[in-house]
Amino acid sequence: MKAIAVEPGAGDPVVVEKPVPEPAAGEALVRTLRVGVDGTDHEVIRGAHGELPAGSDRLVLGHEAVGVVEDPNGTDLERGEVVAPTVRRPPNGTNEYFERGEPDMAPEGAYLERGIVGAHGFMAEYFTSPAETLVPVPPELAELGFLVEPISITEKALEHAQAARSTVHWEPESAIVLGNGSLGLVTLAMFEEVLDIERTYCLGKRDRPDPSIDLIDDLGGTYIDSRETSVPEIPDAHEPMDLVYEATGYAKHPFDTVEALAPNGVGALVGVPDDWSFEIDGGRLHRELVLHNKALVGTVNSNRGHFEAAVDTLASIPGWVTDDLVTGVYGLDEFERAFERNESVIKTAVEFDTR
Amino acid sequence: MKAIAVEPGAGDPVVVEKPVPEPAAGEALVRTLRVGVDGTDHEVIRGAHGELPAGSDRLVLGHEAVGVVEDPNGTDLERGEVVAPTVRRPPNGTNEYFERGEPDMAPEGAYLERGIVGAHGFMAEYFTSPAETLVPVPPELAELGFLVEPISITEKALEHAQAARSTVHWEPESAIVLGNGSLGLVTLAMFEEVLDIERTYCLGKRDRPDPSIDLIDDLGGTYIDSRETSVPEIPDAHEPMDLVYEATGYAKHPFDTVEALAPNGVGALVGVPDDWSFEIDGGRLHRELVLHNKALVGTVNSNRGHFEAAVDTLASIPGWVTDDLVTGVYGLDEFERAFERNESVIKTAVEFDTR
Repeated sequence: MKAIAVEPGAGDPVVVEKPVPEPAAGEALVRTLRVGVDGTDHEVIRGAHGELPAGSDRLVLGHEAVGVVEDPNGTDLERGEVVAPTVRRPPNGTNEYFERGEPDMAPEGAYLERGIVGAHGFMAEYFTSPAETLVPVPPELAELGFLVEPISITEKALEHAQAARSTVHWEPESAIVLGNGSLGLVTLAMFEEVLDIERTYCLGKRDRPDPSIDLIDDLGGTYIDSRETSVPEIPDAHEPMDLVYEATGYAKHPFDTVEALAPNGVGALVGVPDDWSFEIDGGRLHRELVLHNKALVGTVNSNRGHFEAAVDTLASIPGWVTDDLVTGVYGLDEFERAFERNESVIKTAVEFDTR
Repeated sequence: MKAIAVEPGAGDPVVVEKPVPEPAAGEALVRTLRVGVDGTDHEVIRGAHGELPAGSDRLVLGHEAVGVVEDPNGTDLERGEVVAPTVRRPPNGTNEYFERGEPDMAPEGAYLERGIVGAHGFMAEYFTSPAETLVPVPPELAELGFLVEPISITEKALEHAQAARSTVHWEPESAIVLGNGSLGLVTLAMFEEVLDIERTYCLGKRDRPDPSIDLIDDLGGTYIDSRETSVPEIPDAHEPMDLVYEATGYAKHPFDTVEALAPNGVGALVGVPDDWSFEIDGGRLHRELVLHNKALVGTVNSNRGHFEAAVDTLASIPGWVTDDLVTGVYGLDEFERAFERNESVIKTAVEFDTR
């Protein structure tokens, strides 16, 4: 079978030939439909994040997959069922995090991530995966099923943010997404179409005309150009935010978020920056956190429950949103286009099977 | 009646003569037993925090009170009932925060604080207060009832910290209190005696022999001298912490806390610093928050529910702990001693009535 693999930091992804994998006991064989591309893939490609599988000099990419069960192999799955695979796997045997269904809470060293850390991804014509990692997707969502993984990241982040406010009355009326990439935009869509937040904002640094700004407009959100309005200026320029969702990985954003938040607000952080030292008025931020009951919550990855929630969310996002969000789906013969990045690209996927 | 008042920033507290207050409809008249002194009082005295009541040039101090209902004035309270008053009051009429029982979540401008912000405190022979702000204290705890307010601060902070972890498996085995003042020590006692956390630590910067270090030892906690081990060094020197409770108001601590936390840990912040700019490796801290699912939760003040929880907590803290914690209770004739600060002082109170 064909797979898309990369030697991290040493060039572009290429198509390689690999044997169709044999499912072990408890695993099913899945025929891949589509696999999404995101910023993490680009970090893996440039060698800035992730780890090769033991003994491999190339990593099969892809952690946002949807496929069809080809061989249930004695599991409870059914042949023909559409499924999206979760990403983390235990490094050897299992451990407490996986045992209690919280692989997303496992610390470094206690997990592999398919397509990212120490395990091949899903960008291949077939993959195998334990039945419990394969989350059913309604057949009518099969073409968009590669969005379940990114949505699940936001499901987790919002779950944790809401938990941090669960002991008080908290109904966010204003919310901002920092970042107008695909994860930011899908999160904005969730704010508008699923959570029904009254006033939503999205921060970016692009000029109109731009498809991401068009989508922000069409969703009913307010676009904020970070070159004109910095995050700490947002309360004065617009309003303080009950909820901030940081999806850029810009190192200063968590600290800026404390200033952008309304009293009793919460900032959910999912972006991953590199080291960067800079000065902050830490006294003022500390005081703001305390005197206005603010919270910052970092979250990474997601578990099966978040995937299940993401399937429901995907079903409730209007078709025009996903039509605008997905700017390209490319077959294996032109898979390189799925990795191109320019201002007309929002979200892309590689298509493995069109049957 | 006699009251203890101060002209903020202009000298020491003095005894003043005031009329016994008349309870308004819905208020009870309370005969004061004891009122505790804490760091906030000292900040009010030096004019660094708080606000005079409208039209007053002096503020009656005191926000940690216990008293006896002298005149229920038609409320559901009974004469002779021991009560501890909550601290926040609505600035005029009421507002949504007070209406839903969450005065502690009110932003600046939406509350007064008795003895601190715009309202006289409880350091007087009598005070009046709305019945719903008076929380019953069992008579056998009357002498220690001034500890209900500080304990309620920790009840709220821990409630919020636990809420932030409520969506995942989280049973803290290691916890540290930053600060060996009275609030820090009472929180350490709660970690040990109420929450049964396996390994507890307390950070200070004092030399032995010292009564606060003795109390840490006796509680079974480990004393960490911040002059020898900085907060970011704690994971290597001891272990990463599942829970950090910041009670010093040292501006750098929230940022240091991110480094001291174990994966999936939470830092609860209750201290209030002044402005202070300094450099941090914000990229690394941001990444740590995200990749290890860490959270920071600021909380201030407390509501009636936290006072009720604090009464239960006070009842379950062993007598030897409160004996060691309360280093001095002084009558009106020597009330100045309750405001003295030196290394033999942990917690003091002024006694108004010994009947």
